[in-house]
Amino acid sequence: MPQDPIRPTDAEAITLAKSLIRNANFGALAVIDPKSRTPSVTRVAVGTTKDGVPVSLISDLSAHTKALRNDPNCGLLLGEPGSKGDPLTHPRISIQAQATFLDKSTAQYAAIRSLYLQSHPKSKLYIDFADFNFVTLEITSAALNGGFGKAYELSPDDLI
Amino acid sequence: MPQDPIRPTDAEAITLAKSLIRNANFGALAVIDPKSRTPSVTRVAVGTTKDGVPVSLISDLSAHTKALRNDPNCGLLLGEPGSKGDPLTHPRISIQAQATFLDKSTAQYAAIRSLYLQSHPKSKLYIDFADFNFVTLEITSAALNGGFGKAYELSPDDLI
Repeated sequence: MPQDPIRPTDAEAITLAKSLIRNANFGALAVIDPKSRTPSVTRVAVGTTKDGVPVSLISDLSAHTKALRNDPNCGLLLGEPGSKGDPLTHPRISIQAQATFLDKSTAQYAAIRSLYLQSHPKSKLYIDFADFNFVTLEITSAALNGGFGKAYELSPDDLI
Repeated sequence: MPQDPIRPTDAEAITLAKSLIRNANFGALAVIDPKSRTPSVTRVAVGTTKDGVPVSLISDLSAHTKALRNDPNCGLLLGEPGSKGDPLTHPRISIQAQATFLDKSTAQYAAIRSLYLQSHPKSKLYIDFADFNFVTLEITSAALNGGFGKAYELSPDDLI
């Protein structure tokens, strides 16, 4: 039988995981397609709240928004390889999360909007369009892959 | 009401979609986590069969392999942005697929293995490990995003 490939979580793993989340500008979002009940994965812009909870700014025109309104359980892959090096040894984190659509009239929305404009300045062109909404992606669990043979399982308490 | 953002499929869209699949070296694979029933998305190496069906070489040690053995419905995002330019305007294709684990004793396996070694030469270090298997990812539907405002829905017949 193969050995369990998961390493014990240590401070270095937590630091790497947090930095992958904080530094993400975009990622791959997985949702359940309401029609086919199959997972569907799309590229979305990603920021964070001041506490490091991932957020995304998504349009009602997109299939992933319709899917999240139907079922808020989702996955998010962060840590994009550049054009150099082996993408499979580049560190990344696979998050399982619950999406919550935010009320545009709240102070929380204003705070997230302000932070997001700093990390995604081009979004000022559409951030206030009626069909765009912020969702927070509250982490329920996460798997960190720090490169070949460096796998960790992390809890929300490790990350926020 | 917002307009339907999906454009009619044309030859240019089909050519772009096929090239995103044929040229993919890796991608984001979404599966259903058997424990949490939540979508989970991980980075995997991706090749194709000679007919352009996506394939991946995955290890029994990984969570996505266990998930696919439990439920073969999956999603695959191909078309990775480099380190330059806006990742959200970079063309990508979101595929819904059914994973099939291949029998290692078949001619099909040998043909896929041979093609994969050409596109992923480093995989010769582990391609024949007992815990590694090829899966084909038979496309059931696909959404092409060719950049802002360029969305198409494609069928398997468009792509293979």
